[in-house]
Amino acid sequence: MNDFVFYCPTKIIFGKGGEDKIGEYIKPFSSNVLFHYGGGSIKKSGLYDKVTASLKNAGIKFTELGGVQPNPLLSVVNKGIKIVKDQKIDFILAVGGGSVIDSAKAIAAGVKYDGDVWDFFINKATVKAALPVATILTIPAAGSESSGNSVITNDENLFKFGISNDKLRPVFSILNPEFCFSLPPIQRANGICDMMAHVFERYFTNVNHTETGDKLCEGLLKAIINSGPKVLKNERDYDAWAEIMWAGALAHNGLLGRGRQEDWGSHGLEHPLSAVYGIAHGSGLAIMFPAWMKYVYKNNLGFFVQFAVNVWGVNDNLRDFEAVALEGIEKTAEFFKSLGLPSKLTEIGAKESDFEDLAAKALGRGPFGAFKRIDKVEYAVEIYKIAYK
Amino acid sequence: MNDFVFYCPTKIIFGKGGEDKIGEYIKPFSSNVLFHYGGGSIKKSGLYDKVTASLKNAGIKFTELGGVQPNPLLSVVNKGIKIVKDQKIDFILAVGGGSVIDSAKAIAAGVKYDGDVWDFFINKATVKAALPVATILTIPAAGSESSGNSVITNDENLFKFGISNDKLRPVFSILNPEFCFSLPPIQRANGICDMMAHVFERYFTNVNHTETGDKLCEGLLKAIINSGPKVLKNERDYDAWAEIMWAGALAHNGLLGRGRQEDWGSHGLEHPLSAVYGIAHGSGLAIMFPAWMKYVYKNNLGFFVQFAVNVWGVNDNLRDFEAVALEGIEKTAEFFKSLGLPSKLTEIGAKESDFEDLAAKALGRGPFGAFKRIDKVEYAVEIYKIAYK
Repeated sequence: MNDFVFYCPTKIIFGKGGEDKIGEYIKPFSSNVLFHYGGGSIKKSGLYDKVTASLKNAGIKFTELGGVQPNPLLSVVNKGIKIVKDQKIDFILAVGGGSVIDSAKAIAAGVKYDGDVWDFFINKATVKAALPVATILTIPAAGSESSGNSVITNDENLFKFGISNDKLRPVFSILNPEFCFSLPPIQRANGICDMMAHVFERYFTNVNHTETGDKLCEGLLKAIINSGPKVLKNERDYDAWAEIMWAGALAHNGLLGRGRQEDWGSHGLEHPLSAVYGIAHGSGLAIMFPAWMKYVYKNNLGFFVQFAVNVWGVNDNLRDFEAVALEGIEKTAEFFKSLGLPSKLTEIGAKESDFEDLAAKALGRGPFGAFKRIDKVEYAVEIYKIAYK
Repeated sequence: MNDFVFYCPTKIIFGKGGEDKIGEYIKPFSSNVLFHYGGGSIKKSGLYDKVTASLKNAGIKFTELGGVQPNPLLSVVNKGIKIVKDQKIDFILAVGGGSVIDSAKAIAAGVKYDGDVWDFFINKATVKAALPVATILTIPAAGSESSGNSVITNDENLFKFGISNDKLRPVFSILNPEFCFSLPPIQRANGICDMMAHVFERYFTNVNHTETGDKLCEGLLKAIINSGPKVLKNERDYDAWAEIMWAGALAHNGLLGRGRQEDWGSHGLEHPLSAVYGIAHGSGLAIMFPAWMKYVYKNNLGFFVQFAVNVWGVNDNLRDFEAVALEGIEKTAEFFKSLGLPSKLTEIGAKESDFEDLAAKALGRGPFGAFKRIDKVEYAVEIYKIAYK
């Protein structure tokens, strides 16, 4: 096991009705808040009214900034930074999914930095301070509700990069599984794939003696695999949503990666897909993860056998390691497909002639991937080819 | 799944050499520290010298209070409170196992309270504030390094009670598996049993739809069961100790109990054992947990079948639920025995005539246990009888 530091001070407030107390929860922190949200689904669901009523009851002044889209844009972040500075706001409430929360974190960091906030995303600067951010999560997927991560797309050049810093972890997050009831099927499926991918990125490692972490990863994967199809079938299954929502928060709060070397190759390969083709991150991951697995499994066959047996219950012909490993990968691909997610690049309109450009974009910030290093454009191209059709 | 709040802000600094930087880590918090430790094993191991050197290098003034024993005593806590007040100390560093850390937390809370610190332990008062506590853990067992819990024995009446409060969670804890190398076999075994018991108390629940938590519990149990015998066999097995130390911290930081109703019946039954017979808490739990299981398993047979199958791999004659459940319990008892722990009350000198008094002590603070309520002296007596010989 590698040496590590684990620090996750986000308070998780889980269950029904937390949103009605949001004003009360914020009061000790601030009385002048940026209320950040997305495309307006919170107005339809009634959550907007609940939040504004609670803020008003608590005597908290708030300025609204809606309009965050999936794959949140740098332009909106910069708009937020300007508002916060102008209004002398000292706290950001993000109500929505990972995109809104990521956008809020970028604003929180940008406000405290004299330069261009994009500097953080191109490794030109490190976050030293940030405003406190709290969240009310409406889409279990990105895990941003308790992570220190933020992924932003630069609308000028379509580069999409992430940063990770403990200072960006929300001070608290409200998780009410009832908010998930109104999600359309594709968003449910994307979320499930996204959180599974967060576990995968940490699970697959070449570090030895990581059993505690292995078991946590495998357990979360099995819980997600069990409840995922249930929420696809019945969007009002509170208990299944509760599993998904709790598992999704744990998948990305850093816990699962402690003591191991995380990979993040598939995320690196996916980011150009959602930036260029405008698809959801989860859909891109459903395509890229099985392809990545096929590209890397021989590197550590034992790990992929363990994955197939412990996560997917593969147990026939166990002596044929390669067949077992491939069956685990196949079951992963089949599972994503069964959720209604795309499985090949052709399905999202990508052409073979795009691969060089996608690979160049993926490697735009340098090499990535630890399980197998992706440090050459041709390696990335090869994985896109596996994912093609 | 039940509604819940999860908040664990303790920073875990895991791996080799963390102790050499203790002064640096404390500096942002304090320059006047109580250095609290146990019976002097840290002097033999060289840890005492490392800690004092690092504190001196950082220019931190410290006052020593050693002498904490297993089952930490109220009298030492009161001594600590007096020192802290007299010396205007504002930070407590606990170096040792759970007893030292629990003692430090009680001091931290007592200093900020005008009444008798024992009030907290008899539910006469609630902790409203506490000094910050940091730890260097030398015995993986109690999980006190990241919990808000403290268990203290009143040396006047031998009552032993615990409190739980987020304000008592350490600000940071240094976990270096190398510190475990010098632990004698019985302490290794007690620690392993203690941390498994922390998982058990959370795992066994009558709340439905707790799959994410179930999987985390089962995974940690399997990791402990795999590495436990390794550290018994070879006290210098760093990798196995790393699993044990990390699993032990996660077993008791509150994570595993979220969304479920925790039980704590076996702990309630054990506390009088260690208080009256002076045995280690882990040894008492090795006796009481299998007895408690035998007393309660019919209450939720399905859960005990799940336990037997998922944790112990029982899979023969799966249709005979009762036999499967009992085999899981038997395997638990055998495992504790294989570590060299006592399995019956006769082994620690208890007599049948003691049971009424033990039961009265266990119920001294009121009924306990959620999986099966223990609210009558005769129920507790019955479990002691199962544990007798």
